[in-house]
Amino acid sequence: MDVSKTVLKDAKKEEHSLAKPTYASRKEMLDAADEIARILGHDAVTYDAHVLEHHGHSDWSTSNSPGRAVAVVYPRTTDHVSAIAQICNARNVPMVPFGAGSSVEGNFSQPYSGICIDFTYMDRVIAFHPEDMDVVVQPGVNWVDLNNQIAHTGLFVPLDPSPTATVGGMVSTNCSGTNAMRYGTMKDWVLNLTVILPDGRVIKTRRRPRKTSAGYNLTSLFVGTEGTLGIVTEVTLKLAPIPKETSVAVVAFPTIHSAAAAASKLIRSGIQLAALELMDDEQMKLLNAHGSDAVRKRVWDEKPTLFLKFSGTTKDAIKSDVSRVGDIIKPLTDSKFHFAKTKQDELDLWSARKEALFTMVNTRPRGTEIWSTDVAVPISRLAEIIEISKRECGSLGLFASVVGHVGDGNFHVSMMYDPTNSQQKQAVAKCVKNMMTRALEMEGTVSGEHAIGIGKKECLVDELGEETIGLMRQLKASVDPKWVMNPGKVFDWMG
Amino acid sequence: MDVSKTVLKDAKKEEHSLAKPTYASRKEMLDAADEIARILGHDAVTYDAHVLEHHGHSDWSTSNSPGRAVAVVYPRTTDHVSAIAQICNARNVPMVPFGAGSSVEGNFSQPYSGICIDFTYMDRVIAFHPEDMDVVVQPGVNWVDLNNQIAHTGLFVPLDPSPTATVGGMVSTNCSGTNAMRYGTMKDWVLNLTVILPDGRVIKTRRRPRKTSAGYNLTSLFVGTEGTLGIVTEVTLKLAPIPKETSVAVVAFPTIHSAAAAASKLIRSGIQLAALELMDDEQMKLLNAHGSDAVRKRVWDEKPTLFLKFSGTTKDAIKSDVSRVGDIIKPLTDSKFHFAKTKQDELDLWSARKEALFTMVNTRPRGTEIWSTDVAVPISRLAEIIEISKRECGSLGLFASVVGHVGDGNFHVSMMYDPTNSQQKQAVAKCVKNMMTRALEMEGTVSGEHAIGIGKKECLVDELGEETIGLMRQLKASVDPKWVMNPGKVFDWMG
Repeated sequence: MDVSKTVLKDAKKEEHSLAKPTYASRKEMLDAADEIARILGHDAVTYDAHVLEHHGHSDWSTSNSPGRAVAVVYPRTTDHVSAIAQICNARNVPMVPFGAGSSVEGNFSQPYSGICIDFTYMDRVIAFHPEDMDVVVQPGVNWVDLNNQIAHTGLFVPLDPSPTATVGGMVSTNCSGTNAMRYGTMKDWVLNLTVILPDGRVIKTRRRPRKTSAGYNLTSLFVGTEGTLGIVTEVTLKLAPIPKETSVAVVAFPTIHSAAAAASKLIRSGIQLAALELMDDEQMKLLNAHGSDAVRKRVWDEKPTLFLKFSGTTKDAIKSDVSRVGDIIKPLTDSKFHFAKTKQDELDLWSARKEALFTMVNTRPRGTEIWSTDVAVPISRLAEIIEISKRECGSLGLFASVVGHVGDGNFHVSMMYDPTNSQQKQAVAKCVKNMMTRALEMEGTVSGEHAIGIGKKECLVDELGEETIGLMRQLKASVDPKWVMNPGKVFDWMG
Repeated sequence: MDVSKTVLKDAKKEEHSLAKPTYASRKEMLDAADEIARILGHDAVTYDAHVLEHHGHSDWSTSNSPGRAVAVVYPRTTDHVSAIAQICNARNVPMVPFGAGSSVEGNFSQPYSGICIDFTYMDRVIAFHPEDMDVVVQPGVNWVDLNNQIAHTGLFVPLDPSPTATVGGMVSTNCSGTNAMRYGTMKDWVLNLTVILPDGRVIKTRRRPRKTSAGYNLTSLFVGTEGTLGIVTEVTLKLAPIPKETSVAVVAFPTIHSAAAAASKLIRSGIQLAALELMDDEQMKLLNAHGSDAVRKRVWDEKPTLFLKFSGTTKDAIKSDVSRVGDIIKPLTDSKFHFAKTKQDELDLWSARKEALFTMVNTRPRGTEIWSTDVAVPISRLAEIIEISKRECGSLGLFASVVGHVGDGNFHVSMMYDPTNSQQKQAVAKCVKNMMTRALEMEGTVSGEHAIGIGKKECLVDELGEETIGLMRQLKASVDPKWVMNPGKVFDWMG
């Protein structure tokens, strides 16, 4: 068979024109809040300016909007959320869900005002099925609390975002953290969702099997959409067995490049590390200067350093993994391989990694802010992008450091700057933008684990192109024709 | 804060009325095929009745439709598929993608006729990135061939569907197989997709990072939609390191219940098995009677039997896992634990599991057919549903056997029946239907790994309800307003 080459005419694009959404006036939004108060009770709605401010602005984030909600509402049940959606949708009032407020891309900001839905009082564990290894929770449940509550059964939710995060926010941003190398991201641990659609309809995406190929994967569609398609009111989480044995090792490298090369070899080896994290020389200096007492028990090499977490079912298995890791790493560094000898040692070593962000935030000079961002690239490009980005950020003469989930090709850069110095702020913004562009040139992504929010919308268009964003927009418009679900996030109503 | 109980009015459902799709006449469909031939070349289109028959009916499946495509077309590039879509969409001609033809729920049948798109000639590996552990392929690539091609790099696609399956079909059904316990299902191994939308637009769902939280997860939305939203023309697959060491063990149990209890304990133990499979007494009898020479080297206990696959990085790690598994299983059975002592032994033991389906198909009495189906339930309910289903199927006096991916709560039942005996066929259908209902009562799913096709559409409504199916329908209508993409599969245009 010979198919002759043909020149195809450009695909004729169908027009999917969307009317520009029009939102209610401030007065109409307040009326909607009053109607919600009549149904949920007056204690379930607040107009307090301090509360509104707290729900509309994040000190952790460089992506903020001047808009503020007219009210914050506190539902307690799925029915409450359905009622809120019916009222808001009928009156063209934007709805913005709020979890712990720890997201960093302006994911809960309110550029079009509207009503903020706070899940503080939807914090119940609805059903726990240890024999099926799953748990059904409301979105306001904090993941650390949940893990503490169920620890006695030997099960846990194997994710590791900010310790403040709630399950709803974790779903909305498809979060991950240091455990992703072994366990994947949030999408891999959600069995089903109960979702309120914009018009108040309640849907459940699946029942409770651990495996299924029945129908569209609506679960994964909703995870990571940041509340722009619907509001999650119940989540069934898959649980993993807590590893019987764990350990931690730390080793410094002469360069980022050699550390990344070691990481790459470890990933290919098939040794199942629980985590593989990189901290650069700047971060290591911070540990020596400002680490907690536990962390300053030792003097750290101020060089790029890998933190490795091992987990397994027996001490012997861990020992064998540690020894193989040592063999792989040895040719790439002269530094000593620190291997935790006691449980306390293990906790101390790992807390050095976990303190990174907090140490930086707590010790920053008065008046400075931190611009924190993340990208992910195919693993082979990781050393290169980190080195170029460090060089460029470093050339500004500002503090800039790198922490990386290198097992996933994902890393964070944090830069300190003076927000009142507009030239400095612009220079930092340019560094960040260049890093995004570089990540895309390497076929990576502009957001490894922080989602898009309002901060990375333009970058998302650069990443995926207008055709792909156009499909997302089409899906959104079909589910949320009035564009009232967390508007202004992920992408805008027109290109 | 006290939120008083309120009675909410029923969510006012928005009407999403869809016009009933109207398809082209047979003549118009033939005209479309002619136009395709003008662009792709005349060798790329066939009207041969035998070819049409082969593409429209499956002997493996009980879900067939009398409809047949008017032509089969053979694209070689993404542009070809885009051209086909433009032509078919403009003329209201259904498009039905065809991979290996090994699906079992009528997934590629043509109830509304149309044009069948065969990916035989889109079988190229486009780019292989061993250092990033991924590979970009066309949908016609067979996964066994691919794994053979890349084996020298120590990487593999860790799925295990039918050995005949192609990547396109694997994406379309979200396939899995015996490796799912450790590695998950197809959705977990697709990094990005190139998809042709109904109107010919080409989109790419992601770039190539291993981790991302940027924008809607269109990749997971398309995986498992059986070509009803678009046609996949390129797939980037994540690869895993081939385990350095593997082994296999086999152990019989007095009852299904004790085998399932053992499986449950193993899953909770955290020992990372590569596979955990169950074969019932009927299947074991078949092995003794009709197994291959390798399999009949031993006489099998004709009892419910677990097949366990171990994988790890060292021989010691495997030994330690095997010994721990032995300890867990011992209290539940008096049978001996057969542990492979040599590589050959390992292959022989595992081939007993892999031959199950073929042995049954090859030894079935002349004129009988096999009704094969699968469901999945939360793990704690597995023993109960298998026992009840076996009892009911057994009461018909027909051959009925169970093979289970018990690590995932997923199992298959196969029943032999005489298709000319309508009473018998109805009785088998009723058994299958009852099993679905039972799985749903246990919060399971009507399809663990075969997808929905035409065979399980009604069951899917039972599983998810009209509201959830309604959302799927809304999404489909927004992407495929003419309903030309593999119509009649997963769900119908109206409730």
